[in-house]
Amino acid sequence: MSSSLPRVVIVGAGFAGLRAARQLAGAPVQVILVDQNNYHLFQPLLYQVATAGVSATDIAYPVRAIFRRQANFSFRMATVTGVDFAARQVLTDRGPIPYDQLILGVGGETNTFGLQGVARHAFPLKSLDDAIRLRNHVLRMFELSSQSEDPAARAALRTFVVVGGGPTGVECAGALSELIRLVLVKDFPGLDLSDVQVHLVERMDSLLPGFPPQLSAAAAETLRRKNVTVDFGWQVQDYDGEALCLQDGRQLPARTLVWAAGVQAVSLLKQIGLPTSRQGRVPVLPTLQVPGYENVWVVGDAAYLEEAGQPLPMMAPVAIQQGELAAKNILCQLAGQPLQEFQYKDPGSLATIGRNAAVARINRLKFSGFAAWLVWLAVHLFWLIGFRNRLLVMINWAWDYLFYERAVRLITAQGTIESQPKSSTPDA
Amino acid sequence: MSSSLPRVVIVGAGFAGLRAARQLAGAPVQVILVDQNNYHLFQPLLYQVATAGVSATDIAYPVRAIFRRQANFSFRMATVTGVDFAARQVLTDRGPIPYDQLILGVGGETNTFGLQGVARHAFPLKSLDDAIRLRNHVLRMFELSSQSEDPAARAALRTFVVVGGGPTGVECAGALSELIRLVLVKDFPGLDLSDVQVHLVERMDSLLPGFPPQLSAAAAETLRRKNVTVDFGWQVQDYDGEALCLQDGRQLPARTLVWAAGVQAVSLLKQIGLPTSRQGRVPVLPTLQVPGYENVWVVGDAAYLEEAGQPLPMMAPVAIQQGELAAKNILCQLAGQPLQEFQYKDPGSLATIGRNAAVARINRLKFSGFAAWLVWLAVHLFWLIGFRNRLLVMINWAWDYLFYERAVRLITAQGTIESQPKSSTPDA
Repeated sequence: MSSSLPRVVIVGAGFAGLRAARQLAGAPVQVILVDQNNYHLFQPLLYQVATAGVSATDIAYPVRAIFRRQANFSFRMATVTGVDFAARQVLTDRGPIPYDQLILGVGGETNTFGLQGVARHAFPLKSLDDAIRLRNHVLRMFELSSQSEDPAARAALRTFVVVGGGPTGVECAGALSELIRLVLVKDFPGLDLSDVQVHLVERMDSLLPGFPPQLSAAAAETLRRKNVTVDFGWQVQDYDGEALCLQDGRQLPARTLVWAAGVQAVSLLKQIGLPTSRQGRVPVLPTLQVPGYENVWVVGDAAYLEEAGQPLPMMAPVAIQQGELAAKNILCQLAGQPLQEFQYKDPGSLATIGRNAAVARINRLKFSGFAAWLVWLAVHLFWLIGFRNRLLVMINWAWDYLFYERAVRLITAQGTIESQPKSSTPDA
Repeated sequence: MSSSLPRVVIVGAGFAGLRAARQLAGAPVQVILVDQNNYHLFQPLLYQVATAGVSATDIAYPVRAIFRRQANFSFRMATVTGVDFAARQVLTDRGPIPYDQLILGVGGETNTFGLQGVARHAFPLKSLDDAIRLRNHVLRMFELSSQSEDPAARAALRTFVVVGGGPTGVECAGALSELIRLVLVKDFPGLDLSDVQVHLVERMDSLLPGFPPQLSAAAAETLRRKNVTVDFGWQVQDYDGEALCLQDGRQLPARTLVWAAGVQAVSLLKQIGLPTSRQGRVPVLPTLQVPGYENVWVVGDAAYLEEAGQPLPMMAPVAIQQGELAAKNILCQLAGQPLQEFQYKDPGSLATIGRNAAVARINRLKFSGFAAWLVWLAVHLFWLIGFRNRLLVMINWAWDYLFYERAVRLITAQGTIESQPKSSTPDA
C-alpha cells in the first residue's frame, strides 16, 4: 500500500466507524481505524449480557477479524486524548496519528443529568464491563438475600429498579423479570416471588418515546403481565445505593438501580475542543462535516443534526447510514465531486419485552406480540456481525427458550479486581 | 427437610466438593456447600480461556444449577475465614455455619517458591480471572508490538515464556504457539513470525513428570515442531516484568511470563490452624479424616496422603475419588459401620499439545499423536459438566479446527477496572 495515498483516520469501532471503514474498501485511500478496545460491541444486546442471557464474548467481535480481507485497512488500539487540527493529527496515548481526513464516530455515554448519587451508585449499561458488572451484581443480590435474616434488608436486596422508559429500559426490565421468575426461582428453592420487585421508572406518562401510542401502551401492558411494576411520572431526585429518592419525597429501598434514562455524546468531544450542542453532540452540516473543517466529519451518536426540526435519534440505524455517507463524501471530495446531504431512511423501530413479546413499527405497519418478537429475533441475529457469534447467540436463546435457563449466570471477578501484574498495563 | 438431620458442610465447589455433595444425594443428611464463587470451574480447560479458544463462561457452571434436583442440598456463597472446631462452626464473611461433619475440598493455588518478582509480575493460571487476564495481556502485547518502533522493546513484547513442564505448562505453550501462528498472524498483516518466540522453560531435563519417558520425549518433539523452544535445565532466579533472570546469570527479555511451575494447597488451611505438610497440604488418615478430628475430612489438592511412598498427585481424578470416599465414610460413620481406606484407581494420564497432537497413557497403553488427541477431546468433553457447555465448547473447537480461528480474542476490561459502584460490593 502506497503511503502517498490520503490517510482517512476513523475514531471509534462502533456502528458508524465500522460502516465507514467498510465503505472505503477498495478506494484509493489508507484507512486507519482507532479504538481503545480491540472489538466491536453489538450494543443492542448488552442488556442480554446483563441479564445472563448471552455471554459477553457472543456480542463482541475482534476488529482485526472483521477487516482481515480489506487490504487498505489497518487498526490501532489506542485511547484518543485529543486532536491537533492545525497539524492534522489525532493525539493518542500511543503517540500522534496523522490524518488527511478524519471521521469521529466516538459514540455516546450514560447521562446522569448531574445526579451525583446516581453516577456513583447506579449501574449504567453502555459497555461490556457495565453489563458484566450488572450481571454479577444481580446474581449476588440473590445470594445475599438468601442468607439475610432482616426483612427490610432482604426487601431492598430483592428490589430491582430500572430507570428510563426507552428501549434499553424496557428490554432490561422485561429480561430481568424473566431471569428472576423463570430461572432464578429454580436456583433458590426458598425464594418467595411475591418478595421480589422489578420496577420500571419513567418520568413521563408513556414508554418508548417515538413509537406509536398503541405500541407504547402494549409495551406497558406486556411488562405488567410479566410482573414488572411500571411507575409513570416518577421523578428521580437521587440514589444512595440503598434507596431511590423521588422529587416528591417518597423513597423506595433498593440495592439495585439500572440507569437507562439518558445518553449523551462522549465527553471526549468537548476535550477535543469542538463546539457541542444538546446532549454534548457536535453540530454538523448536512454533509456531516464540522463547520469550518472541510476534512473533519462527525457521525453517529456524536453528531448533532436535525431533520424536520427534530434531532436525529442516537440509534444504530442513524449511525450506520451516517458512517456510509461520510465515507462516500470523502471520496467525492477527493475526486472533486459535489458532496451529498444526509437523509435518514427510517427502517422502523423494534423493542422486545421478553419471551414471545415485542413491539414493532416497520413503515406504516405496527404490530406487537409474537410476530413482532420473531421480527426482532431475525433482525438482531442478522445484524450481529459474524456467523459464529450468530450461531452461539441462537443456541443460547434456543436453550433459554426451551428450558427456561440462563446460561451465563456466573458471578465473575470482573470489576472487582484492583490489582494485576504491572507488566499487563499498556505502557510499553 | 428436617433440621434435625446431621449437617454435612462441604467447603469448595471443585471436583472433590462437587463429587462429595452428589454422593450424599438422597442420604439422611443436610448438605451445605460453601464456595466464594457461585460456579464450578472446569480447571483443566483454563489454558484454553487464556489462549482465546473458549469463552470463560463455557468452562464454568453455576453450582445451584448442578444441584437443582438434589432436595437435601443447599448452597452458600461465602468466603471461609476459619473453622471453630470446638464449636463445630465454619467461619465465613457472612457469619458462622454450624456443622456436624466437615469436608474441606478447598483446592490448590499457584506456588511461586518465594520468588517475589514472579509472584508480582508473572501470570498464574488457577482461576477464571487469571485466565482472562492472561488472554487480555497476550492480545495486548501484539497490539503494542504492532505500534512499537524500538526493536528491543518489540522483541520483549513478542517473547512469551511459560515456566513449568507439567501438563498445564505443556498445554499452555502449545496453545499459545498455535494462537500466534495460526490465528493472530492473520490479524496482524505486518507480523513476522520469526520475530515471535514461545519458550517452555523446565528445571529438569524432561517434560510431563509421571508420564512414561517415550511420551515425555514425544511431547517435547511435538512442541518443537509447533515452534515452541523447549529449554531444559533452566533454573529461574526471578522476573521483573521485563526480563527473566536465570540462576546462571543469563537473561531473557520477555514481557510475558506464565508461571505453571508449581502448585500448593491454599493458604486457608494454615489460617484454619490445621497442621500442614509438603506443599501446604494437610496430612490425612487413609480414611481421609484429619488425625484427632473424627468429623473433619480433607480431600483433593488440600489433602496429603501417600501411596506406595509417593504423595498422591494434585489432579482431578484423585480429587473426585476422594470426594466420593469422604461422603461414603461419613454415611458409614453415621450408620455405625467401619470406614473404608482410600485407594487411588489411576485412570491414566493425558496431555494435549494443540491441533491433532496429544500424549496418552491408559493402563499399560501408551500412545501419542492424533489418536491420543481424539481421546483427549472425548474425555474432556465428557467431563465438562452440563450438556450445554459441552455443546458450546465443541462448536468453538470445531470452528477453531476448521477455520484456524480463535473466537474469543477480545481484550476486555476485566482486571483493569479499579472502581465500581459501592452497592455492588458484597457487604449486605
